[in-house]
This record gives sequence, C-alpha cells and structure tokens, in this order.
Amino acid sequence: MSEIKTAINPRRDQDFPEWYQQVVRAADMAENSDVRGCMVIKPWGYGIWENIQRQLDALFKATGHKNAYFPLFIPISYLEKEAAHVEGFAKECAVVTHHRLEVGPDGKMRPAPASALTEPLVVRPTSETIIGATYAKWVQSYRDLPILINQWANVVRWEMRPRVFLRTAEFLWQEGHTAHETQAEALEETEKMLGVYADFARDHLAVPVYCGEKSESERFPGADRTLCIEAMVQDRKAIQAGTSHFLGQNFAKSSGIKFQSREGREEYAWTTSWGVSTRLIGTLIMAHADDDGMILPPRIAPTHVVILPVTPKPDTRDAVLEAAHKLAGELRAQRFHGEPVVVEVDQRDLGGGTKNWEWIKKGAPVRIEIGPRDLAQGTVALARRDKGVKEKEFLPGAELPAQIPAILQSIQDSLYVRALAYRDENTVPINSRDEFYAYFTPKDANKPEIHGGFAQAHWCGCGECEEVIKTDLKVTIRCIPFDAKAEEGACVVCGKPSHKRVLWAKSY
Amino acid sequence: MSEIKTAINPRRDQDFPEWYQQVVRAADMAENSDVRGCMVIKPWGYGIWENIQRQLDALFKATGHKNAYFPLFIPISYLEKEAAHVEGFAKECAVVTHHRLEVGPDGKMRPAPASALTEPLVVRPTSETIIGATYAKWVQSYRDLPILINQWANVVRWEMRPRVFLRTAEFLWQEGHTAHETQAEALEETEKMLGVYADFARDHLAVPVYCGEKSESERFPGADRTLCIEAMVQDRKAIQAGTSHFLGQNFAKSSGIKFQSREGREEYAWTTSWGVSTRLIGTLIMAHADDDGMILPPRIAPTHVVILPVTPKPDTRDAVLEAAHKLAGELRAQRFHGEPVVVEVDQRDLGGGTKNWEWIKKGAPVRIEIGPRDLAQGTVALARRDKGVKEKEFLPGAELPAQIPAILQSIQDSLYVRALAYRDENTVPINSRDEFYAYFTPKDANKPEIHGGFAQAHWCGCGECEEVIKTDLKVTIRCIPFDAKAEEGACVVCGKPSHKRVLWAKSY
Repeated sequence: MSEIKTAINPRRDQDFPEWYQQVVRAADMAENSDVRGCMVIKPWGYGIWENIQRQLDALFKATGHKNAYFPLFIPISYLEKEAAHVEGFAKECAVVTHHRLEVGPDGKMRPAPASALTEPLVVRPTSETIIGATYAKWVQSYRDLPILINQWANVVRWEMRPRVFLRTAEFLWQEGHTAHETQAEALEETEKMLGVYADFARDHLAVPVYCGEKSESERFPGADRTLCIEAMVQDRKAIQAGTSHFLGQNFAKSSGIKFQSREGREEYAWTTSWGVSTRLIGTLIMAHADDDGMILPPRIAPTHVVILPVTPKPDTRDAVLEAAHKLAGELRAQRFHGEPVVVEVDQRDLGGGTKNWEWIKKGAPVRIEIGPRDLAQGTVALARRDKGVKEKEFLPGAELPAQIPAILQSIQDSLYVRALAYRDENTVPINSRDEFYAYFTPKDANKPEIHGGFAQAHWCGCGECEEVIKTDLKVTIRCIPFDAKAEEGACVVCGKPSHKRVLWAKSY
Repeated sequence: MSEIKTAINPRRDQDFPEWYQQVVRAADMAENSDVRGCMVIKPWGYGIWENIQRQLDALFKATGHKNAYFPLFIPISYLEKEAAHVEGFAKECAVVTHHRLEVGPDGKMRPAPASALTEPLVVRPTSETIIGATYAKWVQSYRDLPILINQWANVVRWEMRPRVFLRTAEFLWQEGHTAHETQAEALEETEKMLGVYADFARDHLAVPVYCGEKSESERFPGADRTLCIEAMVQDRKAIQAGTSHFLGQNFAKSSGIKFQSREGREEYAWTTSWGVSTRLIGTLIMAHADDDGMILPPRIAPTHVVILPVTPKPDTRDAVLEAAHKLAGELRAQRFHGEPVVVEVDQRDLGGGTKNWEWIKKGAPVRIEIGPRDLAQGTVALARRDKGVKEKEFLPGAELPAQIPAILQSIQDSLYVRALAYRDENTVPINSRDEFYAYFTPKDANKPEIHGGFAQAHWCGCGECEEVIKTDLKVTIRCIPFDAKAEEGACVVCGKPSHKRVLWAKSY
C-alpha cells in the first residue's frame, strides 16, 4: 500500500505525542530552552498569544475589569495561610533563597551564603495569596467592593514531565481576581467569566467546549467550586482550557479581606479567580492541526493572508511584485472582526515550493499565488488551509479584497464545524462498567493514546469511585456539565443511584 | 505669610522625595507590597503602562521587530559566560535554589533540602545571555540574519534602596535583542532604537530628552557602547529614561552566535539590546506632576476626559445624567492620534468636590462638569489639568466633541513646552572647577535635592576625573550628547584639553 506523503512525520494516527512536537517545530511556534521545563515562544507562537491576549483583554474590559500588576514573589508564610492551597502547590514551587552571587572557593559563581533570605520567596504559581493580602488593605467598606481586577503575567509550576505549551515550568497566563460583597455576586462573576471563556473558545479559537463544574477531587486548591471549559483534541483526550473558581470566603478569611457591611457588621468578602494560559496554544494545535502542520483559525492567526509572488523570469518580476503589493494594500484596507486584515508578501529569495510549504506548516489561513500568467488573466490562485493542500481556486484579483472577510469567516466556521463534529462523534453515552472499561482500553497496545473518547456516564458522586477509575484507566471526571439532563441511572462504577451523567475522559 | 493650600503635602519645594511618594499615592497609581522592593501597580498606573506598551509596540513593529518570549530563569553558568556582565549583575540577583516546599521540623514550610537544584537559577535581571544561547541555535548562515526581536517581560534586580516605579526589585520592561551580519548594521540598529525612544519620550510622554552616549564607566555591563536618553525632572536631577546598547561581538562570542558569511567564512554576529521600563512612569510623575497631584500627557492617559455630572436636586438628576452620557458618547466617537477618545462618566455617589479633587490628583487631562444650569444654557464647564485647578472655560456643549482632539493636543503640547523650558533654564554651561562645585552644592543644607541642574562642561575623557566628581558631589556624566558642538576647552576637573562639552548631573 502506498503511503500518502505528509509534511509532518509521524502522522497523527501513528504517534500523536510525537506528531504534536513536530507540528510545533514545523510551524516554528516554540522550542524547549536549555532551562528545564521552560520554553522559548518564537514570534509565530507569540503572535498567536498576542492575539489571544488582545481579544480576551477586550472581553474582560467589556465586563468591567481593569488590569493591574502584583509581585512575582510570594513569601512562604503567605502561601501557608490557606491550608489546602499550600498543600496543592508546595510540590512544584521554585524557591528564591538568596539575593546575591559571589565567586565560591572553586572559582565558580554561587549564591552568596551571606545573602540568604530570612524568609524564602516562592515564584508565584498563582497569585491568590499575594493579591488577597493586597485586597485586605484596599477593602474597608462595602463601598470598596466589588474589586474587578485582572493580571497578565508569567507563573511557575515546577513540572516533572514538561510538554511545550501544554505543561511547562514557566507559562504565560491571565489571572482574574475579584472580591464581592455577597456570595450571589461572586457566584455570578464565576459563571460570567466561564461564559467569557466558552464564548472565546468557540468564536475566536473555533474550539467547542463542554462547560461544567469539577468534582471535589479536581477542584483548585482552596476553592469551594471550580468551573471549567473542556475541549476534545484529536487523540480524543480532554484538555482543560480554562477555569473559573468560586473561592467562597476561604481566601478572604486567610488574607483578612474584611469589610463593614451595609448593616454595619464586619464581614468577609467573597472572592473568585479565573484564568487561561499559553496552554490554549497547545489546545489549538491539538484540536486543529493536521498531518501537514498547523491550521490556524483566522481570528487568532498572526497573518491572515500570505501572498506568494511567482517570479520565474527576471523580465516579469517587477510587474508581479508590484501586483502583489498592490493586492496586499487592498486586502489590508479590509477589516475582519473590526481589525485590519493582516497580509504578508513573502518575497524571500527561496523556491516557491519551499515557501508554500512553510506557510502550510505554519497554518496561515489563506495563501495567494500571483504569477505572470495570473497577471495576464487578472486572476489569483487562492488556497485555503482548511482544505486540501493542493486545492486552489482561481479568482478575479479585483474581486478578492471585498470577498476576503467572508472567506476568512468561512474558514473560521469550517474549523469549528469540523472540531464540533469530531467531538460529538467521539462523545458516547456509556451505561455499564464493562462497556466503560472497554471504551477506555486501547485496542492496540502499541498506541495507548487511541481509545474511545469522551464518555457520558452516571456517577454516584463519591470520590472512591472516581479514584478507582483514575487508578485503573487514567480516566477522570472532566466536568459535571451544566446542561446535563436530569436522568435516573446507576453509577457506572458502584451501581448506586445517580441523577445525571457526568463527562469522563483521559486528559492532558 | 499665608500658605497656599495644595492637595499634595509636602510640596515639591519642601521635600521632593516625599512629594513624589505622596503623588503616587494620591493618584492611586501604585503602592509598595509586603515583598521587599516589589510594588503593586494599581489600575490607574497600569493603565498608563498599557498605553506605553501599546504605543511603543506599534513603533517597534513599524521598524520591523517581532515579539517573542524567553525563559524567566537563567542558569548561573550562562551569566558567567560574559565576564563584565556577571560582574555587573551578580550583586543584585534573586537566586532560585530549590523546586519544592516541605514541612520542616518546626512545623513550618521550608525549601525541601532534597529538591536543591544542581545548578541554581537566577531570575533574569536582563536576558542577553539566555537569548544569546537561543540565537546561537537559530543562526547558521548570513541568511538567518538579522534577527529583530523584542520581549515584554518582568525582570528582577535586588535593590537595597527601592523607590516605587524608579527603582524596584521587580519591574516591567521591554528588551529588544537583535543580531546582525555586520558591525555597521548593528550600530545603525542601536541608533535607530534610541531614536524611537527619543521620539516616543517627546511626542507621547511630553518629556524632552538629551540623546547621547554613556562614558565607559556608565556603560551596560558587557556593552561596547551604551546610548541613552536622559530627562530632567523637577528637582533638576536626571533620569535615564531608556538605553540602547551596541554589544559588539561580546555576547555573540560568549554565547556562540556564529554564522557562515557571504564569503563562506565563519563569523560572529553583531548584537544589540535596548530597553525601557516602568521607570518611565516615575519619570512622567517627576517631570509633570505639580503640588496638586499628577498631570498626565493625554497620549498616555488611561482616561482623557472625565465627566462629572452635578446633580444637586433629584428632579433634575435624570436629565443631567442623560446629557452626560450623551456627551460621553459623542466624545468617544472622536479620535485622538488614531484611537477613540476615552471618556469616563463619574456618577459615583460622592460629593462633587471629592470627585473633582480625585481626578485632579489622578491627573486626568480634561474634566467636564454638567449641571442643571449648564443644561439650561447648553454649555459645559471644562477644566484642563495643565492649567490652574480652579480655572474653568464655559463652552457650548454641542461644539465640544469636534474640539476635543485639538484640546487634548494643546494640553499635550503645553506640557512638553513647559518641561522643555524648565530643562533649558536649568541646563547651564559651566567653565571652571569652582563654578562646577558651587553649581552642584545645595544652597540650603536642609534641602540637599535643590542644586543647579544640568551642567554642560568640558571633560578630558578620563575615568579618574569622573570618579573625583562622583565621590565629591554625587554627580555623573549623564551622556556625551550627539549634538555637542566641537569646541576647544579645558576639562573642568583636571584642566587637560577637551574638544566638546558633556552633560553632568545628579541622577536617579
């Protein structure tokens, strides 16, 4: 049987984890640095992050939030204030213990022993405690509430098995931290921000997500409730793509965020926190890329359209380049979702095939070739990255600018539809323990990633049943979906009564 | 003599350093955190930083740069590779030595001894070494050059005498890092980016700057040449507001950034780095604020116009609020330097005087009052923050939207003109050693900050003379200005021949 040649080797169906690494490399998005677990985000990958940032930031501001910035370092004693929180993060903290280097006895630089800190500092794994301590100073009265603040920052969680974008020691994220007068307001905020994430995933990333609540064992350390969005990627595993936590009064109590209420009583505030990270880029890759490389949803692509001038002969070169730049100018005058269409004319002195394949692998949504023949005919050859890499449409060049916003939206939509169909095909109601085990057991021992997908199955609500499944199958409850129908059934593990199905899956 | 009442106490002329702290507090821009030397940047201060970021970022991109992101942590051995560099930064490094916390014998959390890192990591004080190591992997041929990359990031330099915005242990900045084929190209880049900073300071921050080169003793550790922009603030001291470094082949050699040249030889690349930081916000405050608080140049103000509805009686309240929001909408439809005018309607339930003074202290460029009387007359009362706090103009409300861009530009210009006049008044040619010492010696021992200002004086070029002045007067050469005229003279310290004047000042 003849093998189909693909730009990425291995293919997804051959070795998904290795395929992922190869896509990241081929798309020139990021690479591992020499610092264990820390990545270098290259311009193409960072351009995606800049778009995610700018667009999410506008959504946060539209919901009344402002940005601020809090210290990178957290005294150990702050972390310790919330017992569940420190328990959750202690094992993965980068700890600063000295503030000076000096030449040691072996002639090499070392931390100067005389500069040891009285209290070591942790590089923030998340900022609830340091922000809580600050809010405690800001809040005296109910008039000081709500506080609606977001921070864009880097955080560090020491990872033993790092994987670029998905799980890195340092990553970039945003963390919203809000404080409210009432429980109801804080709950409303928690849900509202999860809604922002879900809308963003759907409309901007073209990634369908399940919205729901985590079971107790999967909650954020210190939270009363953790809401999440869960995406399916192409090996049918789940990725938690964003979380929104209702923290109750836990952090308010440990940090002392107290206020005089409208009734004149001293009360603790109700707080929330919510975040998404550069992990979203890993999600995008695993959700959309194919065996020829990345496929970027137009809304977050750093470049929407790449123009590839075809200049086989010196005598037509100038005319082709001029036409290419003229078209680029006309396309840039168009807007896609309120922002100018981003166009790059790739006139590097490289072979046409090399350049074309580079942009295929990077996932640029639209590639346009213009050569002498097109010039003569007034046409351009347009290739959409959501279609086969050899497919081209020939369009009148004069009509293209007016059409480009619709073409980009059509690509955006087709990626979503494809991802949604894939997810729905691979989300199955499961009704018995045997069926459940069969669903999650790989058919081929050499391909442990390939299994059923997401299972909708009944659960009695107890942690023991979760633990059994986690131990036996490495499968966890991804969420208790908000839209789960009331339905009587029996826990797929222990058989006790259950009132709705929850979502189970293997996950990143 | 009756004292003029001011919102900020002490006034600038009474205690400049304390005045500065009080302006930061009154404008609600930032505060010290409990973590030594680390600040919390509050929404109003961070809003200024967001504007600086967005506007500078556009200038970087217009000059061909792309953003990327490199690790927060730097192995000690990387820093050590460049001798001058490690020497310059070793004394102020936060050092990560462990990657886990555990409960110690006293029941408290401590760094887990078993998690000690084989090689400690430094929290980046600047990223030449880690980025150099990365570029070494990216560059093989002259075709891979130039690399034109910028990073927005936090950095840490342990400061013994921190001062909010101006000198903090952690600060936010951007650092451009470029690599080039030739010395000439790298020099051109170094100068080009200093030009970007100078233009940005003048046109966006309304801060006039001297552009020039640092003397050897003030160079960035590891650089061949350091170019800088130097601003004067209102105690006549200098602030280095931005630097651009020509690194020669120093970091290329220590990091191994080698390439095959057009002639087929192996050569080292030529690199540059350049940065500005949240220190710019401190510069803005010290340059523009007055005894009533902050005064923000409109181009970087988070809010351009604040509308203060005056609602003395319940029966006119709705009409006033409606008019306020209508005006806000009309103003928002206007553009200032390509972006929508940012308007806030402050309808908080607080006294009109309290709100007015809050916005004066925050430095909002324009305040507009609308009350029942204005409504009847079709006027609004407009106050510009660059004029006296009691000064108001009454304008026809219908004409205001069309006028607002010009009003904002007029404020922007007047702040620049004022700062320029102040700087030029206090920049004086000095011709003898006695005169020099007198110029920099405070007239009043109780006010050590008040001295002459900037001195333009001859210098022989030797480090010993610089050292004498630094020791005696705490005065340094701020820069050798690019536009210094050729002029024969005698070094103000040793009397040896000199060919041009350099700029001397006390500095932050």
